[in-house]
Amino acid sequence: MLQQRVYGILGGDKRQIYLARAMAADGHEVRVSCLERGEGLDSLPQVGPEKLAADCDCILLPLPATKDGKTLNTPLSEVEIPLDDNFAVLFSGKKVYGGMMEKLLQTSPLWDSVSAFDYYAREELLTGNAFLTAEGALGLAIAEYEGALNSSRILVTGFGRIGKALCMGLKGIGARVYCAARKLSDLTAIRAMGCTPMRYEDLKDAYDVIFNTVPTEVLTAQRLSCQRPDTLLIELASKPGGIDLKAARRLGLRVKEAPSLPGRMSPRAAGELIKDTIYHLIEETA
Amino acid sequence: MLQQRVYGILGGDKRQIYLARAMAADGHEVRVSCLERGEGLDSLPQVGPEKLAADCDCILLPLPATKDGKTLNTPLSEVEIPLDDNFAVLFSGKKVYGGMMEKLLQTSPLWDSVSAFDYYAREELLTGNAFLTAEGALGLAIAEYEGALNSSRILVTGFGRIGKALCMGLKGIGARVYCAARKLSDLTAIRAMGCTPMRYEDLKDAYDVIFNTVPTEVLTAQRLSCQRPDTLLIELASKPGGIDLKAARRLGLRVKEAPSLPGRMSPRAAGELIKDTIYHLIEETA
Amino acid sequence: MLQQRVYGILGGDKRQIYLARAMAADGHEVRVSCLERGEGLDSLPQVGPEKLAADCDCILLPLPATKDGKTLNTPLSEVEIPLDDNFAVLFSGKKVYGGMMEKLLQTSPLWDSVSAFDYYAREELLTGNAFLTAEGALGLAIAEYEGALNSSRILVTGFGRIGKALCMGLKGIGARVYCAARKLSDLTAIRAMGCTPMRYEDLKDAYDVIFNTVPTEVLTAQRLSCQRPDTLLIELASKPGGIDLKAARRLGLRVKEAPSLPGRMSPRAAGELIKDTIYHLIEETA
Amino acid sequence: MLQQRVYGILGGDKRQIYLARAMAADGHEVRVSCLERGEGLDSLPQVGPEKLAADCDCILLPLPATKDGKTLNTPLSEVEIPLDDNFAVLFSGKKVYGGMMEKLLQTSPLWDSVSAFDYYAREELLTGNAFLTAEGALGLAIAEYEGALNSSRILVTGFGRIGKALCMGLKGIGARVYCAARKLSDLTAIRAMGCTPMRYEDLKDAYDVIFNTVPTEVLTAQRLSCQRPDTLLIELASKPGGIDLKAARRLGLRVKEAPSLPGRMSPRAAGELIKDTIYHLIEETA
Repeated sequence: MLQQRVYGILGGDKRQIYLARAMAADGHEVRVSCLERGEGLDSLPQVGPEKLAADCDCILLPLPATKDGKTLNTPLSEVEIPLDDNFAVLFSGKKVYGGMMEKLLQTSPLWDSVSAFDYYAREELLTGNAFLTAEGALGLAIAEYEGALNSSRILVTGFGRIGKALCMGLKGIGARVYCAARKLSDLTAIRAMGCTPMRYEDLKDAYDVIFNTVPTEVLTAQRLSCQRPDTLLIELASKPGGIDLKAARRLGLRVKEAPSLPGRMSPRAAGELIKDTIYHLIEETA
Repeated sequence: MLQQRVYGILGGDKRQIYLARAMAADGHEVRVSCLERGEGLDSLPQVGPEKLAADCDCILLPLPATKDGKTLNTPLSEVEIPLDDNFAVLFSGKKVYGGMMEKLLQTSPLWDSVSAFDYYAREELLTGNAFLTAEGALGLAIAEYEGALNSSRILVTGFGRIGKALCMGLKGIGARVYCAARKLSDLTAIRAMGCTPMRYEDLKDAYDVIFNTVPTEVLTAQRLSCQRPDTLLIELASKPGGIDLKAARRLGLRVKEAPSLPGRMSPRAAGELIKDTIYHLIEETA
Repeated sequence: MLQQRVYGILGGDKRQIYLARAMAADGHEVRVSCLERGEGLDSLPQVGPEKLAADCDCILLPLPATKDGKTLNTPLSEVEIPLDDNFAVLFSGKKVYGGMMEKLLQTSPLWDSVSAFDYYAREELLTGNAFLTAEGALGLAIAEYEGALNSSRILVTGFGRIGKALCMGLKGIGARVYCAARKLSDLTAIRAMGCTPMRYEDLKDAYDVIFNTVPTEVLTAQRLSCQRPDTLLIELASKPGGIDLKAARRLGLRVKEAPSLPGRMSPRAAGELIKDTIYHLIEETA
Repeated sequence: MLQQRVYGILGGDKRQIYLARAMAADGHEVRVSCLERGEGLDSLPQVGPEKLAADCDCILLPLPATKDGKTLNTPLSEVEIPLDDNFAVLFSGKKVYGGMMEKLLQTSPLWDSVSAFDYYAREELLTGNAFLTAEGALGLAIAEYEGALNSSRILVTGFGRIGKALCMGLKGIGARVYCAARKLSDLTAIRAMGCTPMRYEDLKDAYDVIFNTVPTEVLTAQRLSCQRPDTLLIELASKPGGIDLKAARRLGLRVKEAPSLPGRMSPRAAGELIKDTIYHLIEETA
């Protein structure tokens, strides 16, 4: 049933390139638009957005669909696509799948008549992304930290999806993992996994590397003041993040901000994850 | 504040022994009742239930508080304590902490005037118990399976608390772990952890050992019929469990029912977990 | 080429049962002797030792071939087989594969004319046995220790084959692993694996469980005196072992002697390992 | 006893910077030479090579001491130091510790009268370096591979120090690890660790990433021809390495040559490892 549709992939970064290639490799008819600077799409028809919308039943928008709320997210294209009624009307009667769709859906009342789905709201995408983020963060820390992660004292703040995946991976490469969390059941799980559970109020020691996964300020000036000048901090949470950046700067601590790791470090895996998630959405809404 | 109370531990198994010892070691005043056959309580005053209730502010009941709904769960005592108004009235105005309290609370209307708390409803206890169950199950499988778990094909059904802990532990000792789950996000996590995700409908191969953690019948006659005569099945879920026992018997498969592993395999850790949980409850309701 | 031979399996424990079954399952012609109390051999011809020797080209003896140096190791048989010239002469011109053959080969000068091979001298068998020992030790500790291994402080003495496998497995199930070793490069590896390296002279703390893998006394009275009454000691090394047993008794410490774990806990895996090793020997000496 | 000596660190890369800093932090009197472009040495006296040799009892040379056999290895200096009699005579009566000293010792007969030690010959340095190499290789692969390592099929060729460390680390981050080795006991260990053992002659499948650790050509044209265009190959062995580079180029495979990872990816950890090793050498030769 999936086979008979025509899929149009519009805008986005390397993940969309891999999404397009993977869907084509699965035997689907795929067209792409606004990905001119991407590589590896030679065999796929590249068309303008209007033609794409006209030719395809299902339109796949990027993650995020828009960054500024005004134009489509098209980093691999010279074309700037304003999000207005003219854009929205193209998708009338179509199925549209995109990531973080909220801002886009507010750009025109015409979106009300479109079947729009947000694949970033899906649990399996968030879970997969968390593992990709953890792996990317590990790679980043190995590259940036002049010591070794193995046998070092590493702190993870937060035990959500990303924190869990980080604890497992760090332990797997021989680090001594400390993880700070609020929930008592998280502290129990951290301990049983062989890591050291920490309450935030007890964060008084220095660590070699700190990975923050919490979007609210848990690494306060006071907690940062316990760190050494060579402690590396990696910010994985979305803005405003959990690190008091001013205090970090004042203390001379090195902070590496690392947003969007899946797309930057593992675009193929991230694109294939989007593909799987869209397949699930299509199946469930067929 | 905790220090000034007198704690009475009434009934239960080895876990309550360790609970009593650990609380006394923490400096609390502790009395015990209906634990005569337990060891290591020599230094603690052993009294009858009435005196215990009279002397103590906080009463700690076992997990489960009752098995049959009619008598208190007192496997280490000759005394049988009927659950009736005479029993309930003893605790009027007291704080009572027990596990799986529902059946007990139905035995007398007088329980309505008791401050009763169910520590088994606490997330941290369930999480800790899941890790203890997984560890006990590992120990059981090592003892019972005549092959080696390392490098064997092991299936875990379910990816809840126990399933997750089992996957981590089994992988940690070198097994090839397959895990069946329904939720798409669970399948994603299983794969990212380095295990092989399975949908239930695809369970068509033979495994060396199968751990069931699902309380509804997922290991049906048909799926069991794919197993070899030497496949070992371990039932970890509560009744009725996930294994079609009749079919297993007919097929000559070996099923090891393994309820209540924390109490049987790790009573000290389980008792200390109950202690920590009760401390949390006391702090929060102080 | 292997197929044309007739294999005779003589004496031994459950491992030999599984060895016989696995070789038969591989399509070999197999006969067995002195395994009457074993189960699962129904389809294989059971004969006396003389007939076995007469009918077979390759004779497979147990591990160890003899315990007392005077009789064959036949725990699953009523028959006692003295090791003398009458026994040795049976194998003249045959190929004989056994484990720890030294004592047996001294029982008669006639062994000089037999092609005898010691599979216990093979690196792959020792390596495989080390992993089986570690897994069995883990199972034993889970069963015997009333706490949980996960999150506990566990000491492994020695970082040879068994010590390495134990460190990996214990870490894999969430324990905090300390490992004592003499070689500087071992201490480096222990640390890099995420365990805590210890020099023997620094063993001054208490542990929850101690696994000894060193055959010389490293757990002296002084080091044992640092342990708690509930510390569990598991002796995995061959006699005289590494634990000062007298001191342990005096101090009231619990010592679990655990020799021959592969044969007792994982007889099938151990038997299949012997099979693989014998196949390698046969290939190399063909 | 160590305290009274004066240590002179001459030439080298970032590792020597960290070596100097760590020794100074340990309380030693340290002077440095030919490290002008290094950072973080402000508090240490920087002198010329002659003065360094004159002032210090122990001279610490880089790893490798020389690359071309003609000049000292001084990548952080403008100064070129020829290895001749004039250089060698400086160290008469001194203790000199360097890495891969063989070529240097052949540059002058005067080295015969110097107490020269090669720290790269030490087992603990090689072991530590192997773990640093494995961690660096992991970081490199995460950065270079557009998919995810977790849940991917990864091949490691060789099960020496680096291969072992890689297998552990890769498994720890959720990869499906295959490891090719020749020794039967290595194949047994690989399997028991939960990885898939491969004989070289059976390498007929495609992998996502291949790490080579073998210095002789094991990844032949034929074996490379089984790979996909997007397979990433990482060469960790010293020249000539194990990958048929011509064939790889012809097949369009991507090969990432990754020599000297510890110095490049983990200079601090590598420098501290050199420090520890030199301390051991000094202790043993005191």
